[in-house]
Amino acid sequence: MREINVADLDDIARGAAILGTGGGGDPYVGRLLAASALREHGPVRLVTLDELPPGASVLPVAMMGAPTVMVEKLPSNDQVALAARTLAAYLGRELTHIACAEAGGVNSLIPMVAAAQLGLPLVDADAMGRAFPELQMVLPTLYGIQATPMAIADEKGNRGVLDTVDNHWAERLARSVTVDMGCSAMISLFAMTGGQARESLVPGTLSLCAELGALLRTARAGHADPVAAVVDRLGGHALFTGKVTDVARRTTTGFARGEATLTGTDGDSGAELVLRFQNEHLIAERDGVPVASVPDLICTLDRETGEAITTESLRFGQRLAVIAAPADPRWHTPGGLELVGPRYFGYEIDPVEVFQ
Amino acid sequence: MREINVADLDDIARGAAILGTGGGGDPYVGRLLAASALREHGPVRLVTLDELPPGASVLPVAMMGAPTVMVEKLPSNDQVALAARTLAAYLGRELTHIACAEAGGVNSLIPMVAAAQLGLPLVDADAMGRAFPELQMVLPTLYGIQATPMAIADEKGNRGVLDTVDNHWAERLARSVTVDMGCSAMISLFAMTGGQARESLVPGTLSLCAELGALLRTARAGHADPVAAVVDRLGGHALFTGKVTDVARRTTTGFARGEATLTGTDGDSGAELVLRFQNEHLIAERDGVPVASVPDLICTLDRETGEAITTESLRFGQRLAVIAAPADPRWHTPGGLELVGPRYFGYEIDPVEVFQ
Repeated sequence: MREINVADLDDIARGAAILGTGGGGDPYVGRLLAASALREHGPVRLVTLDELPPGASVLPVAMMGAPTVMVEKLPSNDQVALAARTLAAYLGRELTHIACAEAGGVNSLIPMVAAAQLGLPLVDADAMGRAFPELQMVLPTLYGIQATPMAIADEKGNRGVLDTVDNHWAERLARSVTVDMGCSAMISLFAMTGGQARESLVPGTLSLCAELGALLRTARAGHADPVAAVVDRLGGHALFTGKVTDVARRTTTGFARGEATLTGTDGDSGAELVLRFQNEHLIAERDGVPVASVPDLICTLDRETGEAITTESLRFGQRLAVIAAPADPRWHTPGGLELVGPRYFGYEIDPVEVFQ
Repeated sequence: MREINVADLDDIARGAAILGTGGGGDPYVGRLLAASALREHGPVRLVTLDELPPGASVLPVAMMGAPTVMVEKLPSNDQVALAARTLAAYLGRELTHIACAEAGGVNSLIPMVAAAQLGLPLVDADAMGRAFPELQMVLPTLYGIQATPMAIADEKGNRGVLDTVDNHWAERLARSVTVDMGCSAMISLFAMTGGQARESLVPGTLSLCAELGALLRTARAGHADPVAAVVDRLGGHALFTGKVTDVARRTTTGFARGEATLTGTDGDSGAELVLRFQNEHLIAERDGVPVASVPDLICTLDRETGEAITTESLRFGQRLAVIAAPADPRWHTPGGLELVGPRYFGYEIDPVEVFQ
């Protein structure tokens, strides 16, 4: 894939929603935003990490906030560029490339809006290889790259720049501003050189999203099992098949938090799976025993179509296939687990190491 | 007064605490900070509004937060200059003058720290003629001057710039960041030209603070009544003399809020006065009837010494003289009352018009 056209967006958005592990925003919303920007400004050129000049000036952009809110309060396209332009002005340098901070139905598509509006190429990569709920939870943090100066903007035209002593302070201050801005805001952060991007980002994320989306499409067209195709492509495994029998959801401190309970069907009859989430799925417990956890990916897919179901869309009665897939191996290092392991999220368990 | 030396600080801090109407920070803390800066950098040159060149680049600076916290978490002197420097860099222009956003025991002294560290003259003026709890509550708002871009900095080195669609949004976002920063932060805002400063600021505030402080000192030395001297100088009147019999205080949403009850002594025996405050005194009710209110000044002074008692220092058993003094007349216009009248603070009463 050398450039992204409107025709590519369907596959990318649906593939990205799978990697979003329940978070990262709704693929329908992401597709709408990107389509509007591409129709206005034309296709976006995609460059691989290998092609990035070491001196490039790369800026990741993303939505921050609660996905429960994002589906009701749509971002404005101007807001995306505003966050990027505000930071470029503060840094006093020209941007050369836009990148994705995370994979997700909105957060893989928002960077296309920025790239299209600013007339810049987009890097085929992201900073997590999945979605995580807090902004310091990116591989660049492990490489000592600073989240700030970062910019934040809302749809009304309010914007700010934060310049903090560490990436946890960036998360804390930006989260409060996001809550004030109505629980969703556009951010640009982790401005980095091409060299830093090549070292710290996960390569090929947008291509993988497009591939996953195409897999869903072709599996369905060929009457094959789309869930099995996704599991196979990600090197993951099926965790559970069941029906949603309970969802408890609360939007607190700027996050969509909650638990979903699934009652087993098919081969899992008689068993129960509980999913605990903070924007993204964090832990899956089968009959009280953790069977998958951060940093690995836990994805909830429609059992028939393989479409990702985001945590804000979980509903009583949905028939789901829950799958697990391995995270980028750097997340399983001691530094990675300190940032995104179960204990960071308040669960006193070791990560479930199913893929090591 | 043509310049401010360490020897002037005592009078200024105590006079400023009177104009602070219970808020604006503790004069002891303010004096300590300014003395340290003046000892290191030498005296600060004072210019009147009349002397300001129309094209001057004037920046008001202040502490934002709960005075209850400021007495425990002292600002660092670096923090003051950091807020000013961050904004100057964002604006991309050289500052020529520093100004006071409000009158108060800390907030009249903090600008001296900035002026000393940056080697800039200080304007003998402020933006309220008193202290008010929220940042949009300044006369420049009535003149259409924007609070933002504004900078905010904490003592750890975290800082931010906010650029909002109106001054109420500036207050809202800055208040959340202030709460995260530990309920007190340094801000620089309402950057304005010399022409805008001449039009919108209250002239002579620092000179008035020095004069009030000197009045207290000379009245006490001459065995005269310092409270009467202050009342006379401000064109105010005595409201109540009494003993503090109850103080309810809570630090919520970044403010020190509460009520104090005084039981009358001397000529007020048998009566009761209730003071309602949000950092500053907002309303005084004598036996249930409002007898003074914002925008006018309600000041709690030690009955014997005339020293201002800030709301965070109110204690059971203190013997106080409560006085009222007229606000700058611009606060009594419809636009002024909309910003700082009793109804803005949630009291369904008209302002008590004792001085009109």
